[in-house]
Amino acid sequence: MTESIQISPIGYVHSARKTPEDDFWNAVPTEIELDASRFSPDSLAGLTDFSHIEVIFYMNHVESEAIQMGARHPRNRKDWPLVGIFAQRGKNRPNRLGTTVCRILSVEGLRIRVEGLDAIQGTPVLDIKPWVDEFAPQGPTRQPEWMTELMKNYWK
Amino acid sequence: MTESIQISPIGYVHSARKTPEDDFWNAVPTEIELDASRFSPDSLAGLTDFSHIEVIFYMNHVESEAIQMGARHPRNRKDWPLVGIFAQRGKNRPNRLGTTVCRILSVEGLRIRVEGLDAIQGTPVLDIKPWVDEFAPQGPTRQPEWMTELMKNYWK
Repeated sequence: MTESIQISPIGYVHSARKTPEDDFWNAVPTEIELDASRFSPDSLAGLTDFSHIEVIFYMNHVESEAIQMGARHPRNRKDWPLVGIFAQRGKNRPNRLGTTVCRILSVEGLRIRVEGLDAIQGTPVLDIKPWVDEFAPQGPTRQPEWMTELMKNYWK
Repeated sequence: MTESIQISPIGYVHSARKTPEDDFWNAVPTEIELDASRFSPDSLAGLTDFSHIEVIFYMNHVESEAIQMGARHPRNRKDWPLVGIFAQRGKNRPNRLGTTVCRILSVEGLRIRVEGLDAIQGTPVLDIKPWVDEFAPQGPTRQPEWMTELMKNYWK
């Protein structure tokens, strides 16, 4: 029997993008607003001493039937290899979790304006952590060519 | 009324560290094992083409009463500023979520041996994503001095 964990959104995404799209995320104006019934601006005190935050969010628009457990071609591109769902960052994944590092533009009350958040309007936010350089990958990094190609227009 | 989201672990952490400690995480032998009732090695196909993974985990040892919603001194150090729970990475946070980038040592069947995972024995794993350089912070990063000091022995 699989254990079940209860999570509550700490806030929601306001985004000019209403439906999922693959690319061009940097151009989309995006804001996170904390749940005012549970949080006060205290929860964000000192956040502007950091340049970036890491956001964990719940991709609630992904349908159960779409979730992949095994291997698939990223973006259904048959010319790219068949790789496991945990060897790609596609949205149709178990638990529907997303995590992205984005740049803080401003913090006002319970609202954080950001650049580079690949989450659409209404997305529940589960956690916000400050980006800390020591949490970057240790040692040299390596990724396959298909991933570099996939990312070409992602942030434009 | 706050929305509730159901999440199921995709696997668990095996670690030589049985109780939470602040520092010296790199030296701790750590492995992730996927839930064999739901996943096959297909889910990890192609993962070794990447050097690092990002792991989202649930810090289930954190007691409800310990969770901080507002501001606190990181590690209770009164000489460090009072900062919001979302401006620090301490474990006593709403939703108890952790996320860390760690180096892949090997992948065998449903097991991933890693270096640099700050999660203790039995921690439920909620997602694994490959680290992709394009998901690093865009533009220059900035963090306060107390955080740099806090991280001094974290990975040793």
